Amino acid sequence: MMGRKIVALAGGVGGAKLALGLAQVLPADELTVAVNTADDFEHLGLYICPDLDTVMYTLGGLANPETGWGRRDETWNVLDAIGKVGGETWFRLGDKDLATHIERTRRLRTGEPLSSIIADFAKRFGIAPAIVPMCDEPVRTVVKTDDGDLAFQDWFVRLHCEPVVRSVRFAGVETAKPHPALRSFDGLRGVIFCPSNPFVSVAPILAVPDVRVALQRAKVPRIAVTPIVGGQAIKGPAAKMLAELGHDVSALGVAKYYQRLVDGFVLDVQDAALAPEIERLGLRVKVADTMMHDDSDKKRLAEAALEFVDEIAADGRH
Amino acid sequence: MMGRKIVALAGGVGGAKLALGLAQVLPADELTVAVNTADDFEHLGLYICPDLDTVMYTLGGLANPETGWGRRDETWNVLDAIGKVGGETWFRLGDKDLATHIERTRRLRTGEPLSSIIADFAKRFGIAPAIVPMCDEPVRTVVKTDDGDLAFQDWFVRLHCEPVVRSVRFAGVETAKPHPALRSFDGLRGVIFCPSNPFVSVAPILAVPDVRVALQRAKVPRIAVTPIVGGQAIKGPAAKMLAELGHDVSALGVAKYYQRLVDGFVLDVQDAALAPEIERLGLRVKVADTMMHDDSDKKRLAEAALEFVDEIAADGRH
Repeated sequence: MMGRKIVALAGGVGGAKLALGLAQVLPADELTVAVNTADDFEHLGLYICPDLDTVMYTLGGLANPETGWGRRDETWNVLDAIGKVGGETWFRLGDKDLATHIERTRRLRTGEPLSSIIADFAKRFGIAPAIVPMCDEPVRTVVKTDDGDLAFQDWFVRLHCEPVVRSVRFAGVETAKPHPALRSFDGLRGVIFCPSNPFVSVAPILAVPDVRVALQRAKVPRIAVTPIVGGQAIKGPAAKMLAELGHDVSALGVAKYYQRLVDGFVLDVQDAALAPEIERLGLRVKVADTMMHDDSDKKRLAEAALEFVDEIAADGRH
Repeated sequence: MMGRKIVALAGGVGGAKLALGLAQVLPADELTVAVNTADDFEHLGLYICPDLDTVMYTLGGLANPETGWGRRDETWNVLDAIGKVGGETWFRLGDKDLATHIERTRRLRTGEPLSSIIADFAKRFGIAPAIVPMCDEPVRTVVKTDDGDLAFQDWFVRLHCEPVVRSVRFAGVETAKPHPALRSFDGLRGVIFCPSNPFVSVAPILAVPDVRVALQRAKVPRIAVTPIVGGQAIKGPAAKMLAELGHDVSALGVAKYYQRLVDGFVLDVQDAALAPEIERLGLRVKVADTMMHDDSDKKRLAEAALEFVDEIAADGRH
């Protein structure tokens, strides 16, 4: 019997958009968004979770539609004043956003697990689907570059992704325990890899011990939605990383990267010509308009992804 | 030969006002304001120094003239948002003020001493006189009340000073080391006890090991400016504490409390009738208008206090 629950693996902006689409079309108890926490970091003494917060703010209708990160109707009074006492201001933290970090940091210091804090915040923000961190333990993405090893946000925000990437590792992941939602995928309706950066958003989730194996073994439809359209990342450094890490800078490169983990690949209409090559990898392909400009785009792509999941289930090809 | 430097002992609002007066009339290198830190506390995971910040904001022209605490032109966006994620909002921290706490907490966690951080902040705020914490070690005022032992800010802010006070102690003070400005008073022009709460603002400074003895031994004029006028505290719970701790609820009660530590006592004009009784304690008395409504009041009281210090020095009665 087909399951009803969807687990979506998500990073920041792209992942949050599809997660919002899924939240619009699925009953709340049928969606769990499992989010990368390897780009979390301590800054100004506060524990910051960029991807979790982007997903949370997006699903809560609190996200800044212009930037893709941070909150709407934001002000910057604290950061301006921090600059005046000599503090760092390169990582832009707005006042409302800081409240999340201050209260989360305080609760983490009492020993409360991140997953519990996020569940409570999400409830207070009126978010019905489950948003879960990939694990409660701190994991940190380290980008090995020609300029040395860099903490992810240093590379991503402070250095604008400029140093050439040679490899990526997730410090601390070996001892992390996956969130229960990631321990077994059996009995789900399906697993959806959101259009997030494969190397720094999805790979850390897969690197949490046992998640990759559980996914490989799962007898449920698993699909990925391309984060690359026309050889470009919609947002962020995915295309640059594909090139620097020696992959095809295309949806094909991403499909190859996910080859043994997914049954199907959602390709953008602009890249329809790549379908035969991706099918030759043993993957089923669905061509869809993957650009999500507004909420109806998100809903449409979510519907297409779910339809694809169900087609794969019907075929028994997973 | 008479020294040139003044050390002022200060708590929050009243102390900050006189400190500002002194800063207006003394060359910057002739004034050190030594500030109580026993009402510091951790809140929202941040290290908050109410008295130091009140002195710093007041001397930097950044203080909120209405409240006496916090900063002028303040906004409350973070605290509002903290309330929305279930955090505590009873201690009112504005956005600009939070910047001070965030950056101070971050620097303290790197191991930098509080005195060094405050010196840097004061410089950045354009404050010329030295502002120093009584010590770098954390000391915490505990108010023993009929409702049990309470952390100072709990009693003061959250419970509006309502529980009846039986005694006050300063946890951790035994192992604190006084700031160098409080180790010896010899060679100063004088020491001024600002009109701050004797029990919770001045007493903690005196309780730092060796400070009381150094003050008693100092061969320099030491004066106190009354925080009680007409049997009332200008601000805060000093009168209530005088009563509950068994003292006269008057400037006389304060003069008795400081009797062995000061040579002179500045009495408000409203209380001139108390002068003979205070003189019978062996103290010299100066009657002055101690109410500080505006900056010219502060300057005038500072001038009167300095004149008093110099009169005592000229008399050789210290």
